[in-house]
Amino acid sequence: MAQQLKNITKRSEDFAKWYTDVVKNSGLIDYGPAKGTMIIKPYGFAIWELIQKYFDSEFKKYEVENVYFPLLIPASLFNKEKDHIEGFAPETFTVTKIGDKQLEEDLYIRPTSEVLLATYFSKVVKSYRDLPLIYNQWVNVLRGEKTTRPFLRTSEFLWQEGHTVHETKDEAFLMTKNILEVYRKVVSEKLLLPVITGEKTVHERFAGAEATFTIESLMHDGQALQCGTSHYLGNNFAKAFEIKYQGRDSNWHEAFSTSWGVSTRLMGAIIMTHSDDSGLVLPSSIAPIEVQIIIVKETDEVNKAAEEIRKQLSHTYRVKIDKSDKSFGFKMSEAEIKGIPVRIEVGPRDLESKIVVISRRDTKEKTQVELKNVEKQVREMISEYDKNIYNMALQNRQMRTFEASSLKEYIDVLNEKQGFVLVPFCGEMSCEADIKAKTQTTSRCIPDGVDQSKGKCFNCGKESNLKVYFARSY
Amino acid sequence: MAQQLKNITKRSEDFAKWYTDVVKNSGLIDYGPAKGTMIIKPYGFAIWELIQKYFDSEFKKYEVENVYFPLLIPASLFNKEKDHIEGFAPETFTVTKIGDKQLEEDLYIRPTSEVLLATYFSKVVKSYRDLPLIYNQWVNVLRGEKTTRPFLRTSEFLWQEGHTVHETKDEAFLMTKNILEVYRKVVSEKLLLPVITGEKTVHERFAGAEATFTIESLMHDGQALQCGTSHYLGNNFAKAFEIKYQGRDSNWHEAFSTSWGVSTRLMGAIIMTHSDDSGLVLPSSIAPIEVQIIIVKETDEVNKAAEEIRKQLSHTYRVKIDKSDKSFGFKMSEAEIKGIPVRIEVGPRDLESKIVVISRRDTKEKTQVELKNVEKQVREMISEYDKNIYNMALQNRQMRTFEASSLKEYIDVLNEKQGFVLVPFCGEMSCEADIKAKTQTTSRCIPDGVDQSKGKCFNCGKESNLKVYFARSY
Repeated sequence: MAQQLKNITKRSEDFAKWYTDVVKNSGLIDYGPAKGTMIIKPYGFAIWELIQKYFDSEFKKYEVENVYFPLLIPASLFNKEKDHIEGFAPETFTVTKIGDKQLEEDLYIRPTSEVLLATYFSKVVKSYRDLPLIYNQWVNVLRGEKTTRPFLRTSEFLWQEGHTVHETKDEAFLMTKNILEVYRKVVSEKLLLPVITGEKTVHERFAGAEATFTIESLMHDGQALQCGTSHYLGNNFAKAFEIKYQGRDSNWHEAFSTSWGVSTRLMGAIIMTHSDDSGLVLPSSIAPIEVQIIIVKETDEVNKAAEEIRKQLSHTYRVKIDKSDKSFGFKMSEAEIKGIPVRIEVGPRDLESKIVVISRRDTKEKTQVELKNVEKQVREMISEYDKNIYNMALQNRQMRTFEASSLKEYIDVLNEKQGFVLVPFCGEMSCEADIKAKTQTTSRCIPDGVDQSKGKCFNCGKESNLKVYFARSY
Repeated sequence: MAQQLKNITKRSEDFAKWYTDVVKNSGLIDYGPAKGTMIIKPYGFAIWELIQKYFDSEFKKYEVENVYFPLLIPASLFNKEKDHIEGFAPETFTVTKIGDKQLEEDLYIRPTSEVLLATYFSKVVKSYRDLPLIYNQWVNVLRGEKTTRPFLRTSEFLWQEGHTVHETKDEAFLMTKNILEVYRKVVSEKLLLPVITGEKTVHERFAGAEATFTIESLMHDGQALQCGTSHYLGNNFAKAFEIKYQGRDSNWHEAFSTSWGVSTRLMGAIIMTHSDDSGLVLPSSIAPIEVQIIIVKETDEVNKAAEEIRKQLSHTYRVKIDKSDKSFGFKMSEAEIKGIPVRIEVGPRDLESKIVVISRRDTKEKTQVELKNVEKQVREMISEYDKNIYNMALQNRQMRTFEASSLKEYIDVLNEKQGFVLVPFCGEMSCEADIKAKTQTTSRCIPDGVDQSKGKCFNCGKESNLKVYFARSY
């Protein structure tokens, strides 16, 4: 890190540039040499590791087991499920040789691994006794992207992909919904992103799925971002890959499967929801450093007090004393730009009065706190901090949630405000393609908990019994 | 898992077939559809996760930070370091197109990531203040292999690759050695593989390194296996990629770098060292289940007692009650084949006398234990178990460590016995290539702690001041 912190474009001036500035200046990533790839730097990766930890521990409650499936998929396998290959073929990276030697068959780098899992399931599943299989892997996947942006859209990204196979439709469907609930829980409670849950329309469904469920959140600029999807695959893959089992009735049946994933896109969602003109703002649960102790001026006493505070807080929090040889001011700015929830300034003069100064990243409030109350104050402050950033995000979404009943109204809302727009919609593929062509927007979901009463489709005017959120999205 | 456990070939009859049988029947892996790839199943992956955990926590002591660098390396970058490209070019998987679209420049799938890290370091390192950078990543890498075997040699494998850059030669060298010590510690203390540490000869050095250090272990059949390597890269990569910093003297200097790695090969080493004719034998620290509770015959009382034991032991151990509907005998065999260190049989008759039967996987001893002593007994048993399997491995190595002073003696030892053979060696590239051609064996290392006195090279007869272990190896 250079000794000079760079300026961040104002969020209100140019949201896209602000985003890139925050991502780069907070030390999360750098660009990789191959087009559309990124290097996740230590600070960024530490956040990702914390995110992984929360999901993994929730997955365990549903008996999810971690596995590793190969990166490369022989072309012949990939071509078995028609919708799936159509969806992914144009963007798959293809290996055609090893060294100078041309391969007999092309190998695709996984854009997702349904076909690998389906092939495996078809080999090992013989009886209802072998079911369910509930697998997950944390891996890299690649998809060629024309325009890329760190975390949001990159040619390579990291994700978890869950793949399960079940005896009954109901069981597979329940799995799909249980995972959606895991996603909702972790994303709203740990990442502090208020999300809407719902089902995708046919147009936005995963290639090869019978139903796709989603959690959707709204960024500060009013554009939506899909934060995680859980797919009920019915027996589409079981048919294409012959995943059959002998049931309790001794007959052979096709199995039912699911798949689901969240990715490093979540990092983008966190940034675009919580951060501000001073840089990153991180929910405490995923902040690699929750409390940074910064020394105003080194003396033996100051060092000793700082170390004592560190020790005391480190039972509960990830705490660090910044021991670099940078100036006090630089350290304060750096901690701010990196979104560290709480900073504690320890200085010789304050120490004489047995106090330190604690500041919150979100409100920038500074509080003088007696030494003996530091732990209590930090606990309260972090709790308030988390509540506040969640509520600000929720408020933003509420302010930016609209209804429209005609395409004109819809376009007016979009042009004026940006946000989720609830519309009556016929749900048809062709109508949605038409809307997308006209407005460059897509449906986000058929939301849970919204009355799906009858009406007329806001675009084609046909009879409709769906209420759907449409939005501009990342 | 099928209801029938398959037979395992006797280790003494056919070591290679025994190995494959153990790997497959214990449920560690299956084969992937692309040539030379493997699927790491839940049981295998759980072991790998534990291995990762131990290394990661040791790395942290040396301020190693985890990162993620892209999978793909543009061909032009890869060609910058001459030795490195020569070493890896013939085996790199090459992406030439995305969908139907031919790429302008070939992209290599990383066989290792030195060039990516070096490119990054050259961009961000400007001043001595930016140093050191101590990075690690846990990722997949690919290398085309002609003959493959699960874990030991696969076209894709998982590993950690550390990459560091330093101000001084001494600091980089110390890093290299510190990591070697981490490797020795984790591999000997957690994986219970007795290892020899030492330096590689010029012939066996990593492509692009100035010195390669290694930990080597000996498998049950007397063949050696390299378990981890730590490379001092000098400023080879700094020169090729222009990693320069402004020093404390205000002049520009080339930086010094290191790289180091351990991989899923370690899983192969564990199997070939500890396992036996009944299947896998796992050191307790990496056993996903350390204690399996198996119910002889279900009654309310038995279930209750089993649950109590599980609860009690789960404070200290990874414990599981096998609740599947398989037979008692099947469950016992399965726990054995999977290498679970300790099994506890809970049955109604034993319970009447307030006892359970505990059995050890290594010695197959069964002990009747009073309910109140279960925890104590398990603790002692696991401690004895770990000691025993380490000592058996150590004994095997000691029995298979030889000396030779001529090529004839060397070949005689190899033909008769297999093992590490300590020989006086000139150290020259051409001489070692000659030995390899004649014997299909390679040098393993110039061992630490062995007196490097003068002598005559066992092959060419030239003056030599090295004592080197040669062996057949995996």
